[in-house]
Amino acid sequence: MANGVSKAEELAQGTQSISIAEFFERNRHLLGFDNKRKGLLTAVKEGVDNALDACEEADVLPDITVEIHEISGDKYRLVLEDNGPGIVKDEIPKIFGKLLYGSKFHQLKMQRGQQGIGISAAVMYAQLTTGKPARITSKIGPDEPAKYFELKIDTETNEPEILTERERDWPNKDHGTRIELDLIGSYARGRQSIDEYIRETAIINPHASITYLNPRGKQRMLVRGTEEKPPETDAIKPHPYGVEIGAMQKMAERTDASTVNQFLKDDFTRVGRKTAKSILEKAKLKDRKKPRNLTRNDVEALINAVQDTDIMMPPTDCIAPIGAETLEQGLKKEINAEFYASTTRKPSVYRGNPFLIEASLAWGGELEEDGLCNVLRFANRVPLLYQRGACAATKGIQNTNWRNYNVSQSTGSRPKGPMTILVHIASVWVPFTSEAKEAIAHYPEILKEVKLAVQSLGRDLKSYLNRKNKVKEELKKRRYIKTYIPHIAEALADLNELDEDHTTTLEERLKTLLEQDRGEVEDIDFDPDANDEYDEELAEMGR
Amino acid sequence: MANGVSKAEELAQGTQSISIAEFFERNRHLLGFDNKRKGLLTAVKEGVDNALDACEEADVLPDITVEIHEISGDKYRLVLEDNGPGIVKDEIPKIFGKLLYGSKFHQLKMQRGQQGIGISAAVMYAQLTTGKPARITSKIGPDEPAKYFELKIDTETNEPEILTERERDWPNKDHGTRIELDLIGSYARGRQSIDEYIRETAIINPHASITYLNPRGKQRMLVRGTEEKPPETDAIKPHPYGVEIGAMQKMAERTDASTVNQFLKDDFTRVGRKTAKSILEKAKLKDRKKPRNLTRNDVEALINAVQDTDIMMPPTDCIAPIGAETLEQGLKKEINAEFYASTTRKPSVYRGNPFLIEASLAWGGELEEDGLCNVLRFANRVPLLYQRGACAATKGIQNTNWRNYNVSQSTGSRPKGPMTILVHIASVWVPFTSEAKEAIAHYPEILKEVKLAVQSLGRDLKSYLNRKNKVKEELKKRRYIKTYIPHIAEALADLNELDEDHTTTLEERLKTLLEQDRGEVEDIDFDPDANDEYDEELAEMGR
Repeated sequence: MANGVSKAEELAQGTQSISIAEFFERNRHLLGFDNKRKGLLTAVKEGVDNALDACEEADVLPDITVEIHEISGDKYRLVLEDNGPGIVKDEIPKIFGKLLYGSKFHQLKMQRGQQGIGISAAVMYAQLTTGKPARITSKIGPDEPAKYFELKIDTETNEPEILTERERDWPNKDHGTRIELDLIGSYARGRQSIDEYIRETAIINPHASITYLNPRGKQRMLVRGTEEKPPETDAIKPHPYGVEIGAMQKMAERTDASTVNQFLKDDFTRVGRKTAKSILEKAKLKDRKKPRNLTRNDVEALINAVQDTDIMMPPTDCIAPIGAETLEQGLKKEINAEFYASTTRKPSVYRGNPFLIEASLAWGGELEEDGLCNVLRFANRVPLLYQRGACAATKGIQNTNWRNYNVSQSTGSRPKGPMTILVHIASVWVPFTSEAKEAIAHYPEILKEVKLAVQSLGRDLKSYLNRKNKVKEELKKRRYIKTYIPHIAEALADLNELDEDHTTTLEERLKTLLEQDRGEVEDIDFDPDANDEYDEELAEMGR
Repeated sequence: MANGVSKAEELAQGTQSISIAEFFERNRHLLGFDNKRKGLLTAVKEGVDNALDACEEADVLPDITVEIHEISGDKYRLVLEDNGPGIVKDEIPKIFGKLLYGSKFHQLKMQRGQQGIGISAAVMYAQLTTGKPARITSKIGPDEPAKYFELKIDTETNEPEILTERERDWPNKDHGTRIELDLIGSYARGRQSIDEYIRETAIINPHASITYLNPRGKQRMLVRGTEEKPPETDAIKPHPYGVEIGAMQKMAERTDASTVNQFLKDDFTRVGRKTAKSILEKAKLKDRKKPRNLTRNDVEALINAVQDTDIMMPPTDCIAPIGAETLEQGLKKEINAEFYASTTRKPSVYRGNPFLIEASLAWGGELEEDGLCNVLRFANRVPLLYQRGACAATKGIQNTNWRNYNVSQSTGSRPKGPMTILVHIASVWVPFTSEAKEAIAHYPEILKEVKLAVQSLGRDLKSYLNRKNKVKEELKKRRYIKTYIPHIAEALADLNELDEDHTTTLEERLKTLLEQDRGEVEDIDFDPDANDEYDEELAEMGR
């Protein structure tokens, strides 16, 4: 190629850096802003998730308002208000006007947000579709004035651009944050709707009160069902089993510890004196070596030694399950079924991160008889509405052999029948398949736990179905026998020349005999009024 | 809350910026590095895609080498070499050692890479899993020395860290790039394997020669089937229909044009003098207004005017279809079926971006009778192996009513039967559902085109199946009649007192009569040797 040099040089002219904001502006479907309908939903979701997280961090019972007003055509105004701790003035522009900024990314902690992208992405989507800045008001205490900002994101630099900044009155509000966004959207009811998201959020967060005004002017108050807040959870350090060579190299470069021994004990969870000693012996490294002097081979030796050492699994008080009982209550609230089962698994670990699976099942009653079972998915108390097919929760259900539990299923599909299954994953770091946080990645450990959880539900369901079947069979037999009792009575009466009264008595006696012999029959008929938890209005919301 | 202020301030302590490299290091499953097996595949894929793009840009027939050596246990060395134009010295560190860097992001052009993430993500995955730097050699012309680099990515800053930099001899090489990575991986054959990726790449890029050495020491030469390079395609400017208010605001701020009129004509495709005039009239804006003086309301008026104006669809010579014939040849190479059909749709537009759908179908023959149909997906000539369920190509197939074409299907599922469907999307910007570029997002326009393409294949298949059915019916009837011919002949012989010879003649005549009357029967039996294109060794590769 004669012009090789010039071609390479020509190509070099066109190269440049891309800002993360530009990247996500172009690829906004990656953040859940694929289209008008999903755009509006995702903006609501990011705002509500943040509000709930903030309230939990400040140990406040959440009171959240979500208002969606139709401005004109497909233009909507979204207003979100919470009673969280508020945000200090200097942080407001960065939190709302910069992608990849926040406190959550560098923490291993069970919380809804984890990436520092969500709410600023909603701000970016709003400015992209309507050109309007975000309006934010925040107040951090009763004696502090509220701060008001109007801001945009400069996508070329990924920095906030402040248009207005001033103090504001916010009467009758001690602390909290309010955000207003104008954006192009589309509102519809049904599956994957905002109504559905709000409903599922309320079910899985019974400690939160949500006031929701939809664009059609209908307001709903979803009042908290309990004053009990979810237990507080702590951030944890990484577990040695989950750390790869590159990550450990970086940790060794940055640690404050002055010796490798100290480094192992300080910077990892579950490494005590003995474990550190054992790791260092296996790695043939001196206790007092400085972490920054570790070579690549040293770190590799450390990693190998770690894999060879029995280290306690990470602590699990960093995860707060919702609990089988609350899960089941939630399911009962929205589904009027004839049978429910729930289970909470013990915490497990994927790539060093503790996680826990809970699941719940409803069968029969008012559930539709036909079609594949419905799946409700939650991660750290957030409903997942999209990407069902790509989610480890769905996969775990599909991989379970439901025919073992007398439920019909095509191999590899969701089972068929009048059934809803709810799966919740709680973790210090939920591995989503995309930044839009719609589906859980297929880590084998997670798939396994989902499977074990739904298998346990399957066994409960099977024993219920068997019982139901037995009762049915029994009733069938009895009907059969009962059909013949009059004939038998008649025959006996003929033989013994009994009169009509005696024949009737004989018939009655035969019936009593039958019942004594075969015992009482359990009442298995579905009673639509038996479920006290069922909330018809709530159930209606997402439909 | 008494401690409101302190809580907000306490929370503010923990916030910080996150570098894009840190973000993707933690979220590496977003880039396709979920696990060992996929990690190795994705690294190969990013390297090969880049190599093919580079060769196309320099108008060179690609000669690519892919070698995977097992170093020990799950540690592999990946070597990729191409005969592309090479990379100038100053660009090498940035292209391989910085995420979100490159020439492709700011271009609307049909090419494999589009984000500036892929190959640097492979470098990051390698250093994360083995701690080893990437080794890169590049040569830009026969008289230039080759440049050699060893480098890592500093994930905290997302900047390259150069460990070694020197000149090197690279005899017998005029120009090209070679990259060596050590990484943790896992090699397996079968579906979603590297073998499968290489095979599908060769099929869809018949102009490329690929030499592939797998970790088991087996070398395969996939020789190019044609010297004809894919037609060159140009980058295009954005089409006004696809630009949102925020994006147009940004374009107006940055343009070199001095008037709005000029801005519309210069910075968009398909806007000429007349169209610009019509847009500006509708928007009630003066021709000579300066673009940077446009207010938000002006831009909104412009956008609305654009939507109200008939503007020609974007040019489509920026997209190069593979062509129905080449597609079908590709399918024939790997599948020995009894029936093939192919179609190339006309270009269409989603959000201002031109795209085009092609599809091909194989039925029967050696394809498996049972189970759901197989789907091969390609985007800009790159095979997509993961996330089949999440892909618009699959969705379009599922949304088609195959029962119309006499193919069985459960509603919403892929059709059942001995069938493989290939779908190719070509676009100046393929909307992937994630940075890992595994599935195409569900834009309604794309779904519609996929559906129209497969419907056309479905109709062809239906007429084939009808023909086949008719032949079968006919053969059945003939068998039936033939059974009776001897009896009829005998009866006639009896009536007319014919001798045995005459009876035989009569029988023959009756048979001839039957054939004349009913015509020749088409031969529909599957002939496994009829497909000249079929390449058994290639077909074997991905299994």
